[in-house]
Amino acid sequence: MRLDDGRVVSEDGVTWLPPVVPRTTFALGLNYADHARELAFKAPEEPLVFLKGPGAFIGHRAHTIRPEGVKYMHYECELAVVIGSTARGVKAAQAYDYVRGYTVANDYAIRDYLENYYRPNLRVKNRDTCTPLGPWLVDRDDVPDPMNLALTTTVNGKLTQQGSTRDMIFAIPWLIEYLSSFMTLEAGDVILTGTPEGLADTQPGDEIVTEIEGVGRLVNTIASATEYGSGR
Amino acid sequence: MRLDDGRVVSEDGVTWLPPVVPRTTFALGLNYADHARELAFKAPEEPLVFLKGPGAFIGHRAHTIRPEGVKYMHYECELAVVIGSTARGVKAAQAYDYVRGYTVANDYAIRDYLENYYRPNLRVKNRDTCTPLGPWLVDRDDVPDPMNLALTTTVNGKLTQQGSTRDMIFAIPWLIEYLSSFMTLEAGDVILTGTPEGLADTQPGDEIVTEIEGVGRLVNTIASATEYGSGR
Repeated sequence: MRLDDGRVVSEDGVTWLPPVVPRTTFALGLNYADHARELAFKAPEEPLVFLKGPGAFIGHRAHTIRPEGVKYMHYECELAVVIGSTARGVKAAQAYDYVRGYTVANDYAIRDYLENYYRPNLRVKNRDTCTPLGPWLVDRDDVPDPMNLALTTTVNGKLTQQGSTRDMIFAIPWLIEYLSSFMTLEAGDVILTGTPEGLADTQPGDEIVTEIEGVGRLVNTIASATEYGSGR
Repeated sequence: MRLDDGRVVSEDGVTWLPPVVPRTTFALGLNYADHARELAFKAPEEPLVFLKGPGAFIGHRAHTIRPEGVKYMHYECELAVVIGSTARGVKAAQAYDYVRGYTVANDYAIRDYLENYYRPNLRVKNRDTCTPLGPWLVDRDDVPDPMNLALTTTVNGKLTQQGSTRDMIFAIPWLIEYLSSFMTLEAGDVILTGTPEGLADTQPGDEIVTEIEGVGRLVNTIASATEYGSGR
């Protein structure tokens, strides 16, 4: 891999940081109908959006901690849309003008605490290290049709999740219209657009690879809380 | 009012900014039993915490926009706790060591969109300008008992909300223990601790004063969206 300054480094010889420090991160619940069915929930009629705090994000090839004593921690391969400029009252037809680019997110969830579809609470979705983001940001113009990209997840090399962004219930342009109709989006805001069906539990030591066609291949390894000296 | 550099200015001759730029803002839903009853909800058995984005915050004496076409926008006087240092796995008995200080929040809600107690969604709680914060930060040591402070709200000089922080369901030290048990709190994080009963609708032109004993008196004026040139 060649850096901007000409140095050549190996992919695993560097520490990868998230390609964007999110200002506000919006996450979509149940934005693929097949995944809503998988969780036995009715698909939402309005986008189910919640916010994520900055402590959740880590980069490519980092470790995500599995908390002690939980029964079910699943990955979620998601296309992350990075906003590039101030957006307020934007219509869907112009929405891509406000997009800077795309990256891959793996928005882990601790299913144990998922009490209710209306509340993906902080114990499910906001723990330290629970959202790898990366490996890099791909410019908007390099992704001609973000609504037609294959998503896949493998666990230790075995394919476990497969879908396409064309199956989103609420498409990217419409999400930008919706959010910017009642609040201002700013450069650096990130929209995590939801995940298709195909979830499975993950255990310390597992290597989880979430990949989106034309965007990137994000590698993450699960670590135990004890290994990281913390009961979280 | 005398500034640190010796200049004397009038309170209304300056633009007040929020006394803290929140890193992560946690907000408590239904943390006073009387307010839960007022909304006809059962009081929660576990803290009902959600996050707020940075676009919501404005300072003392600023304007909050009432969106067009909504029926019910109510104020919420809340004690805001500002975290002062990294907190992880903190026990309630030591929790105040991690507090930097306190300020007053007025966490407006657009009741029209409050579909479900489990989802205070972004249209209710995350609009631009919907959370005045201030006027200033009071050091922890200057507030000997934050769990025994009178809260009041007046609308155009008339008292409409009255309560005490002693009636919180989940007390400040316990909230810090709870949140830091599964994620890391950092300096600049803010916890909005909920509001007691006594809510009322507010209209453009109304002056809303939320005051907390020994912390401060936060003044806010409601403005119409058309006045601010935006349909938000």
